[in-house]
Parts: sequence; structure tokens; C-alpha cells
Amino acid sequence: MLRMGMVGGGPGAFIGPVHRMGAELDGEIHLVAGAFSSDPAKSKLAASGYGIAAERAYANYEEMLKSESKRSDPIDFVVIATPNHLHLPIAAAAMDLGFHVVSDKPATATLAEAYKLREAVRRTGKLYALTHTYTGYPLVREARTICRRGDLGAVRKVVVEYSQGWLSDRLEETGHKQAAWRADPAQAGLGGCIGDIGVHAFNLVEFVTGLRIGEIAAALSSVVKGRRLDDDCNVLLRMDNGAPGVLHASQIAAGERNGIRLRVYGEKGGLEWSHDDPNCLRLNWKDAPSQTLYAGSNVNYLSEPTRSAFRVPIGHPEGLIEAFANIYRDFATALRNRQPLSDVVPSIEAGVRGMLFVERAVESSRAGSRWLALAES
Amino acid sequence: MLRMGMVGGGPGAFIGPVHRMGAELDGEIHLVAGAFSSDPAKSKLAASGYGIAAERAYANYEEMLKSESKRSDPIDFVVIATPNHLHLPIAAAAMDLGFHVVSDKPATATLAEAYKLREAVRRTGKLYALTHTYTGYPLVREARTICRRGDLGAVRKVVVEYSQGWLSDRLEETGHKQAAWRADPAQAGLGGCIGDIGVHAFNLVEFVTGLRIGEIAAALSSVVKGRRLDDDCNVLLRMDNGAPGVLHASQIAAGERNGIRLRVYGEKGGLEWSHDDPNCLRLNWKDAPSQTLYAGSNVNYLSEPTRSAFRVPIGHPEGLIEAFANIYRDFATALRNRQPLSDVVPSIEAGVRGMLFVERAVESSRAGSRWLALAES
Amino acid sequence: MLRMGMVGGGPGAFIGPVHRMGAELDGEIHLVAGAFSSDPAKSKLAASGYGIAAERAYANYEEMLKSESKRSDPIDFVVIATPNHLHLPIAAAAMDLGFHVVSDKPATATLAEAYKLREAVRRTGKLYALTHTYTGYPLVREARTICRRGDLGAVRKVVVEYSQGWLSDRLEETGHKQAAWRADPAQAGLGGCIGDIGVHAFNLVEFVTGLRIGEIAAALSSVVKGRRLDDDCNVLLRMDNGAPGVLHASQIAAGERNGIRLRVYGEKGGLEWSHDDPNCLRLNWKDAPSQTLYAGSNVNYLSEPTRSAFRVPIGHPEGLIEAFANIYRDFATALRNRQPLSDVVPSIEAGVRGMLFVERAVESSRAGSRWLALAES
Amino acid sequence: MLRMGMVGGGPGAFIGPVHRMGAELDGEIHLVAGAFSSDPAKSKLAASGYGIAAERAYANYEEMLKSESKRSDPIDFVVIATPNHLHLPIAAAAMDLGFHVVSDKPATATLAEAYKLREAVRRTGKLYALTHTYTGYPLVREARTICRRGDLGAVRKVVVEYSQGWLSDRLEETGHKQAAWRADPAQAGLGGCIGDIGVHAFNLVEFVTGLRIGEIAAALSSVVKGRRLDDDCNVLLRMDNGAPGVLHASQIAAGERNGIRLRVYGEKGGLEWSHDDPNCLRLNWKDAPSQTLYAGSNVNYLSEPTRSAFRVPIGHPEGLIEAFANIYRDFATALRNRQPLSDVVPSIEAGVRGMLFVERAVESSRAGSRWLALAES
Repeated sequence: MLRMGMVGGGPGAFIGPVHRMGAELDGEIHLVAGAFSSDPAKSKLAASGYGIAAERAYANYEEMLKSESKRSDPIDFVVIATPNHLHLPIAAAAMDLGFHVVSDKPATATLAEAYKLREAVRRTGKLYALTHTYTGYPLVREARTICRRGDLGAVRKVVVEYSQGWLSDRLEETGHKQAAWRADPAQAGLGGCIGDIGVHAFNLVEFVTGLRIGEIAAALSSVVKGRRLDDDCNVLLRMDNGAPGVLHASQIAAGERNGIRLRVYGEKGGLEWSHDDPNCLRLNWKDAPSQTLYAGSNVNYLSEPTRSAFRVPIGHPEGLIEAFANIYRDFATALRNRQPLSDVVPSIEAGVRGMLFVERAVESSRAGSRWLALAES
Repeated sequence: MLRMGMVGGGPGAFIGPVHRMGAELDGEIHLVAGAFSSDPAKSKLAASGYGIAAERAYANYEEMLKSESKRSDPIDFVVIATPNHLHLPIAAAAMDLGFHVVSDKPATATLAEAYKLREAVRRTGKLYALTHTYTGYPLVREARTICRRGDLGAVRKVVVEYSQGWLSDRLEETGHKQAAWRADPAQAGLGGCIGDIGVHAFNLVEFVTGLRIGEIAAALSSVVKGRRLDDDCNVLLRMDNGAPGVLHASQIAAGERNGIRLRVYGEKGGLEWSHDDPNCLRLNWKDAPSQTLYAGSNVNYLSEPTRSAFRVPIGHPEGLIEAFANIYRDFATALRNRQPLSDVVPSIEAGVRGMLFVERAVESSRAGSRWLALAES
Repeated sequence: MLRMGMVGGGPGAFIGPVHRMGAELDGEIHLVAGAFSSDPAKSKLAASGYGIAAERAYANYEEMLKSESKRSDPIDFVVIATPNHLHLPIAAAAMDLGFHVVSDKPATATLAEAYKLREAVRRTGKLYALTHTYTGYPLVREARTICRRGDLGAVRKVVVEYSQGWLSDRLEETGHKQAAWRADPAQAGLGGCIGDIGVHAFNLVEFVTGLRIGEIAAALSSVVKGRRLDDDCNVLLRMDNGAPGVLHASQIAAGERNGIRLRVYGEKGGLEWSHDDPNCLRLNWKDAPSQTLYAGSNVNYLSEPTRSAFRVPIGHPEGLIEAFANIYRDFATALRNRQPLSDVVPSIEAGVRGMLFVERAVESSRAGSRWLALAES
Repeated sequence: MLRMGMVGGGPGAFIGPVHRMGAELDGEIHLVAGAFSSDPAKSKLAASGYGIAAERAYANYEEMLKSESKRSDPIDFVVIATPNHLHLPIAAAAMDLGFHVVSDKPATATLAEAYKLREAVRRTGKLYALTHTYTGYPLVREARTICRRGDLGAVRKVVVEYSQGWLSDRLEETGHKQAAWRADPAQAGLGGCIGDIGVHAFNLVEFVTGLRIGEIAAALSSVVKGRRLDDDCNVLLRMDNGAPGVLHASQIAAGERNGIRLRVYGEKGGLEWSHDDPNCLRLNWKDAPSQTLYAGSNVNYLSEPTRSAFRVPIGHPEGLIEAFANIYRDFATALRNRQPLSDVVPSIEAGVRGMLFVERAVESSRAGSRWLALAES
């Protein structure tokens, strides 16, 4: 059993509890400690809700890392579920004290921080996983396999979108915790929508296609009056193989739920995966009937790694928590076997790419949607 | 933290691990003991996989119940994930020794056994929950609320189906554990498809509508040659308010996955829920646009109990494991608060109804699809 | 150019104008005469709306047939778009005077009439086509090809449904012409819902599978109070190869639109066609990805006759009028080439089968859902 | 009965026959003359197929216009179904001789031509309709009504796409008539994909929202090697009210059929219409269940003009031909009543807007996706 300590995830949190459920689902990881809130009382309250001993409910991450370092049964790794600006300091401190890290996305608040974090990962040799959750869906991984195996031929076009409507109003003014930090540059970093969900869409493209997005031309907007960060992004893409593409994301698409959807077109056909129906994958062919692949542990036509990422047979849906659990399972396997992480788990390299995207998108948008290369300077 | 002991769920099992994941998801229940297999070595192996101390890996349920009774930290309840013929003896023995019970469906192998089990529940006063999983889906519960609140007007027609294709061949001859016991009358009881999935469809109708199915006329078939139990069922229904209906279920519907789907029509409109997309609920109205209700903890238009049955907000799918978890959560709440079970959790009464359905269906089918009342004799 | 005369289709008619549009769509047939209403003024009004010379707007079908017989440019055939009780007299009179016939379904109002009509068809040798419209959808024809070619293996189960909600209230009391005659046994015949739409569902099964429905056990209801004919039907099927099945149809399924949907399961997989999306056909396989076939004149993977039944390429929807047009096109081809009708066009044999179904269903329902053979006595 | 003459639509044509079927569907218009091909023999052949007298099968449009002008029963209007470069000369000549015009899109091959055509329309006062077919779908018109009525609040974001895969290979080299002229700048004009289908997407946005697209930044690609015109376009939009948007269109999206889809988001909710299912319209709301509106002549919740644009009741699909027919019906009404065209029919103003879009898109793309205003210079 691996022991996990969490930073963030206190009262009112959305993603912390999901990390906990995902991490523990397969019975290999147990949440045993946490600095759940900057308010010590709230941290204790949260700990109690998680069934954690009061002594391991810490007031802040520094205290957690220090205390856990001294225990005979210390945590094995830290999961970071805080606003973005804390990702780097927590991750770096944890790794420096010998803890592995699972971090929520984006990797950091700024590109400069991402470079520093990459340096810390390299220096310490610790495992670092970035929870781009959608990569945990087995059929996204199957899409990656199909695409990289060349079933579609060379990639010719990419369309990716991520549409939400929950920030259609100034929720950040109402005491809504999730909205508040996302709308605050001091906590979220340079990007609003682009950093919160655009970066997921970006990652999904590179994850599935195996190509890099070479250049972008972006238009970011703050549609809701008074909002300081962007809440809508539309980005032209040029893949490094020359293929065109488009990425659009919005948090003011009123009535939308959480619609992330990827389409990749190659010479022979295209694939489509949508979070609206994450347990199926569509393949459309130039001269043959369309195909739908379904999820399930017993589905012979899926590749083996995909099949073993399911817990239940065909026709029994798995969802977001199970997607998290797949990332945690791979993390646990590496940790237990003292191996590098599987390359289906987003690493700090993906984290750097994401921040490169966010910063260049902001820069491009400010420069009249000028085309900018996604190359490290 | 409540302690759970499992019977069944050993190597090769499908549903045992799902019970474990569902039970533990919300952090209130922990699997600590089990008689996972009739082969003691296999039981120990399974226990180890579940992270359970070897001493609590029992060779059989009698031993588990006896040993646990003597511990200072005994299990609080038993979950039964065995073939049907063991449901009654295990449940009765457990309750007699003071343990509460969660049982997989159907309640028992025969109607007579169901009556005995009901007697045991009444006698011991223990909690008994029957995992008709589909009732754990929040939008099925919302459908129940909508229907019973009268939004549709009086119910006029019901259509329910459950289509699978996995028994299109004689899988039971190939060493496939799941198929083998389901095809064996000694373990499954009188019903094949009707007892395995037909009973889910039956339960769903009574659960959602609040009506009872008054009479049925059934045609059961063993389509695959050499199969002893039915693998396909088609049943005419008459609700106790006179409304007509139809129920069809199949395990030889080649190419089908796990398609359980309910439609209820009332005077004003109809509702539709399908396991293909369990996170939405369709309402069609006589003179107004159709509506789709979506799942999510933050969806204001859903009733409160439904909303609080979600772990994540709109657009983030939950699936089968979460449906199990909802039943376990209600079970844990009752247990912790020493209250009766919530009436959204299927009880032994639902279990008796189900077995009444199975036996009458078999009887009707043998009698040329004669109409039979679903009344206790 | 072939000349068509219509009986029925006057003011307030639904299906008459659709026949006209379908017949004329491909430019081979022209509506030139009609007895559109039993009210001569209304017949003239309708004729004017259709752009027909006043002299060819007849007061009744007898007059039309007589007058047209004497013209140098007579109609080539008659289309019958009247209530059911007039189908036989009009068709028989037309054929006796040498006119071919296209008739709306069901063939007649009673089985006895269907036998008489078959006799008239045989006696006169005239072409007779029955517009079971759904057989005009190209992908229904493709389903037939696939099924009869054995792609699915032997048929093992059939599920067919036809759900409407438009008769949820007593529309027949409100002056609604379509509802009025359908609810009147004197005009509709023995069957309400079963004769109006159940018969479509029945036909679809035999059309696609190439099997006959051997026996049925039916439960018909008049759900809306005071209605004399059935408005809801649920029927158990046994195909003549022994395969089980179910057919359900309703006109009181409030909120439903016009949902006719067929599923056929064979040894290797199943097919599904639904009127909700008539331009695609789903194939689900036991051990391979599901397939979706799309409509279009340029779709190479469809069989040639199917492809040539489209007017537009893939992705451009065709609908009900085009389905009618396909039947008319085949009719025109036969007429022009003095050939028998293509066997994809429902004939009087299909008409007799349909009426056999209607009468046996009513009889079975009255006899406690007794199983009855669909054999001619 | 109105008389129509066609230019184009000869052997191998796709859209000419669709115009014919759409125009004639409601029985008000009849195709009586045509210059169907530049090859006189082919023109006669086509005429014969259309049932047109040989004398009215002309060798070219000049001859048709001249001859028809002299007849006592001349055509009332000309429909232009030729490659783009002929749109202006034919339309201008026709109007100068007193004929009204229905033209396929885009209005012309270049923006300069569009200005000239507008001048001709103004000068002659003739009716001119541009068949942006998708505006003929009743639910697109309903979307327009909903949007302009303010149901969604102020528009905040627009997403429109049009994906096809039929030009994934160099079909234009294979003798495929449709592909050949579209790939030839001399016939198609400046735009490939952008002019062929991008312009439909553009029109759909302005048609439905009532807003103008103020500025664009475009990236056009010729993905298939050797192709001279663009076959893929991705365009950032800024509406004249400041709302951001994105338009993407492709003819090399292998496996795609004919996917035009519009999403408009306002302050209160969003609407979505997709050609994949043209008979329904989705409305998603910020705080209420989603709604689906269905097509049908008897659907009370639709606005009256929309309802009367259907020929059949709910649940009976209408498609592309019926969408054309709706435009022709409005055209016929105006012509018959000597009124201006309804403003739901795209006019030369829409044509000019479309060409402005095409030319600016090409220009922007060449200038590194520079933002350009869609203003007439």
C-alpha cells in the first residue's frame, strides 16, 4: 500500500476529493495525510472527513513535508490540488525532501516556473505525473495507439475543443471558491480559460497524435465584463508536420457542460473522441463504414493496455474517477517497481509544453493573433 | 469506518471487485475480511490482492461469520457476491449471527427461498439491501421522483428492455466462470436470462413508477442449442393500474453490450432513461419541447437527493462503480445512524417481487404464455 | 410521363399530398386527375391546388374511373389515399377497368377483403403496390440485403417497435379528420393502432428478415377512455424459424413522435435501423467494432440497388417523401417496362400478410393473448 | 404555375437535379427549358431526361434567354447551377432580359463580380435569390427567430464548422466533374474550400444571429499536394458586437460526410443545429434542462412561419430537397405576388457578404492570418 499526502482539497474543493477517490480506487494507494487548507481548522475538518488521523492534518505543506519526512511510515508521494501559483513551490519542496509528486494541471502558473520545475524533476530524479485527466480515459489511450500506429495515415487536420458554460456570470464575485482563484492572475497565472481548460485540449492533441503543435495564432477574450483573465480562446494551429488545425475553448459558452472533444483526420480516415460519451471511440473511413469502438475489459478488438485499463466489461460505463484512477495506477506501478513512469502518463515535459502553449497564446493574442512558434527560447 | 466482509469475489470474479470499489469509494466502508472462494488458497490469494490480512481470508462463509463474531473489531456487514443458490444460506446465517447484509441480485434462487429470506430479515431486524445497481444511478432516482410526483400524469404504458449479447455462444462450456454458473440451474435457480437481467428490468419498472406489475404473460426461450436455462425473454405486462407494457431481455442479442433502458409514458408525457447514457434523462412532452436533464452535483434543476448522489459537477461522467457506491452510501448512513434503510434502496420486499416475477414468468412461459398474476399465493 | 389519378387527399389530408410529392419527385409521374373528396366542391378545390384541370376533378372514384377510361390520355394508375374501408372497392374497380393501383396501407379493412383484393389482382393481372413507406428507405432495403445475404447468420431474435403519442387524447372528438376515421371501426376496420402502425412494424420484420412471423400472442388495449379501437399493442412473436421476438406499437406514448425501429439479431451480430435517423444503419458484431453505414448515392460500400435509390451524396439527408418516391420509381419502372414489380415493393401478398396479422392480433388479444398461427385458414 | 429555365445541371451534375426537385416539389414551379450543358447534344439529352421539349433544350444560356424572351410562354426565371465564374454573366444577362434569377452559391467568382451583380440586381429590379440551402431548413429559420428574438440574450460566442472528406484525394484529376471545376481557379474563383463550403458556414452565422462578422483572421491550406486552391480553412472571427468566434471548414477531413453545424452562445444559453440531424434544434440553458425542438407541421411550440415550412408532421424527416423547396416556395410566392423576397431568403446582399468573406479570408491567409475587416472598401 502506497501512502499519499494531499495539498489542497479542503472544504469546498472540487478536484481534491476526486484525486482521493481516483487514487484509492484500485486499493493500492491510501490517503493518509494532508495540508487541506491554509486554515488549520479547515484542514483538520477535511482530514476528519477523509478519515485521517488529526496528527497528520497539517496547517501547510511545509509542515506536512517536514513532519512526514521524520515519520517511520511517511507518505510516499504528494498530490497537489491547489491553485496554480502553488504548484511549483510545493512540487519542488516535496521532491527536494524525497517525495514523488502527482500534480494537477497546469504544471505551474508561468512558463518560467515550468522550466524551474523541470529542472527540479531532473535534479531530484523523483517521479512527477501531471493529471491531464482525459489521458486517463482508456479510449483516449486507444486513440493514441491507433493514431501513432499509422492507421489513419499521416495526420492532416486536427480539431479540438473544450466548451464550458459555468463562468457565464461573474461567479468569482460570489464567494465561489473554484471560480475565485481561477479568475485571479495572482493565483491562476497568465491564463484564464486557456490555462484552465485550453491546456487540456492542447495536451490532448499532442498526446494522441504524437505530433507537436508547431505554431499558433491565438485570439483570447474576456467576454464577461470586468474579468481580468481570458474566458474564451480561439486558436489556429499548425502542427509540426504542417497540418492545419484549430483549438477552441470557452468557459462562457452558456449551457455547455464540460465538452472536450478531439477530432484527428489523416489520409485514410479520421477519429473522434468526445467526453460526452467517453466510453466509445469513432473511426470514420474514406471508403468504408464508420466504426465505433466500445470500452470494456473484455473487448478483444482493443489493444491490450487499453483493455486492462478497464475495471468492468463492455456496456458498463466508467467515468472521470476511473480516468484519474488509471493515471494513479500507472503512477503506483512505477513507484512500486522503481521504474520510470509509463509514457502514457503526462510528465513534466508535457507540463512545459502546456505552459509554452499558454504563454505563447497570451502573447499571440496581444500581438493581434500573430503566429508564434511553440519552441523553447 | 464501517467494516465489510465479502463472500465471493475471488479470482475470475466480475462483480465482487465492483462491490469492493463501490463500497469503499466514499471512504466510509472498508473491506477487511472475506471468504472469496471455496478454494482456501484462492481465497487467501484474493485477500492479499485486496490488502486484507491473511487471518481474515476465510475458507468459507461459515468460518468467516463465526470468527468475525468473536473479534473485537468484527465486520459490520456481509456482502454476498456468489451464485444465486448461496444467497439465502449466507444471508440467513449472517443475520442470525447479527450481521447486516448487502446481497447481489436476485435475492435468492427460488421464490420459496425468497420467502424464507424475508422471514429471516423480519425475524432478525437486520438491514438487508439488494444491489439492483441501476437504482443507484442518480438519474434513475430522479426518474422515480418525477414519476411518483405525478409530472407525467397517470402512467399509461411501460417499455423496458435489457439486451446483452455475451451469451450468443455456449460460453458456459469454455471454462468461463461467469457464464458457467449462470447456465446451471443448480446454481442459478429456475431462471437464466430472466433471473440474471430480466429481474433488473422488472425491478426498474416498479422502482421508478411506484406501480406494481399486476400480471404477466411470458415467452422464454433457450435460443442457443443445448442451453438448459432461458437466454431470451419477452414478456407482456399489465400494471396494477391497468396500463399495458412490455419487457424484453436477451443475452443472445449478438452485438449488444449491456443495454438496459426504461420508458414510461403518462398522460402528459414520457420519460426515458438508458444505460447507454446514464448521465442524462429524457423527458418528452405532449405539447412542449423535449427536455434533457443532465447529471451533476451542481445541477440546480435536479431534486436535492439526486444532486447529492453525485460526486462531480455537470459534464463529468459517473458510471457503474459510482452507482454501486450510492447504494453503499445509503446503506452506511442507515447503519451508522441505526435507522431503517432509505426507501430508494431495494429491500427484501423488492427481492420477493423479483423472485415472484422470475417464477411466474417461467410458469407462464411453460403454460403457453398464459397471463399470471404477480401475487403472493 | 405516367399519369396518376388519386382517390382521397383532399383538404385536411396528410398522406395524399405526400403521395403526390413522392410520385412526382423523379419527374416520371404526374398527378392529372383525382376524386379528392366525397364533397365535389372540396374535390375541385383540391384539384385546383394540385394544378389539375377542373374537368378531371371528380366527385367520386366511380366517376373518375369511368371518365378516365374514355379519355385518349387516361390515367395509367390510381393511387388510393382513403380510409381503409374504401381500399378494396376502389382498387378492385380500378383494376377491373384496366388501371394499375398504388394503395396506402393497410391493404384493406379486413382479412376477408384482403383475400378478395388478392383475387382481383390475380384476375386482372394489374400492378398493385402497397405503400409500406419504410420499405422505401434505401437503408431499410440495404438491411434486407444484408440480412437475406446471411451476413448476420441465422436470425435469432427480432425486436420491432412503432411509438407515437399523437392519440394521447381523444383527438377523434375534436374534428381532427385523420384521427376521426382511424378511431372509427366502420372506416378503419378491426384494428386501431395495430392496423394503422402495428402493421408497418409487422411488415418491416418480414420485409427485412425474409422470414415469416409464424405465431403471435397479442395484448391490445384501448388506453384512452371511450376509444373503441385499440391504441396500444404489445405482441410476442415467434418467427417461422423458431426465433423469438417482440413487437410493440402505441399511439398513446405521449411525447413520442413517429418512432419506428427495427432490430434483428443473428448468430454473428445484429442490425438496427431507426426512423429517428433513417439515413444510417447500424451493425453490431459479436467480436468486432460496430459499424455505421451511411446513406448516399456515392457510398461505395452499399449495394448497387441501394446506392441508386438515393438522389444526393453522403451527408445530405433524404426523408419520407424520398422514401415514397423510391416506391413510385420502382412502380413506374415496372409499368413503363411492362414488367412485374420489383420484389422490394410490397405487393398484395404483403397486404394479405398484414391483414392476417391484424386479425389474428385482435383475435389473440380477445382470447387472453393466446398464441395463434399467422397461417391462412 | 411558374416556369423555370436552368443553366447547368447536365449529365454528371449533382446540384442541378436537386434544384429541379426542390423547385417542383410543391407543384408551383415547373422546369420547362434549359441550357444544361455547353455540349448541345448533352443539353438535349439532359432535357429529355427532365421531360422537356427538345426545342427548349438550348446550347447555351444566351440562346436560351434570347429564345425564351420571344415565346408567348417564356420562362419566368432562370436557375443558375453552373461553376462560379458563370454566375455573374448569366445572372446579369437574364435580369437584363427581364428574367428573375435563382443562383447557386457563391454569388460569383470574385468580390468585384459580386459588386457588379448587386448593381445589376438594383438596376433591373428583378428578384434574385441565392441558394444557401441550409437557410431553407425550417429549424435553421427557427434558430434565427429564437436568436433574433433575444431568447439567448446578447450573442457572446459563435462556433461554426463545415467538414467534408470527399476531396481527400486528387479527385479533380480523375475526370470527376464536380471536383474538377471546384479545383480550378478559372472556374471556381479565388476560393476553394472557403468558396465552396466555407461561405455556407459564414452565411449561416450571419443568417441566424442577425449580427455581422466584423473581422476575420484566416489560415487557408492546400493540404492535398498539387492542389491549387485551398481545401482546408480555419478562421478566427470577431462579430461586430465584439463577440469572438471560430469558423472551420475542410474538404480533406477524411471520413466526414457533410457536417455543417452551428453553435451560438448568448448570455442565457446556447443553441445548436447540425446537419447530421437537421430536424431538431437544441437549446441549452444556463440553469434549466436542455431542450430539443423537433420538426413538424403540427408542432405547436414552433413559430408559425417555421411550422408552415414543413410538409409532414413530427417524426417524419424532411431533408435537403425540402430545404431547397422552401427557398423556391418563398421565391415563387414573391414572384406570384409581385412582392419583394422574404428576408429569410438570401439575397444579393448576402452574396456580396459571402464574397467579401472569401476574398478577405484569402487575403488574410496570405498575410500571415492578419485580422481584416469585412467591410466594403
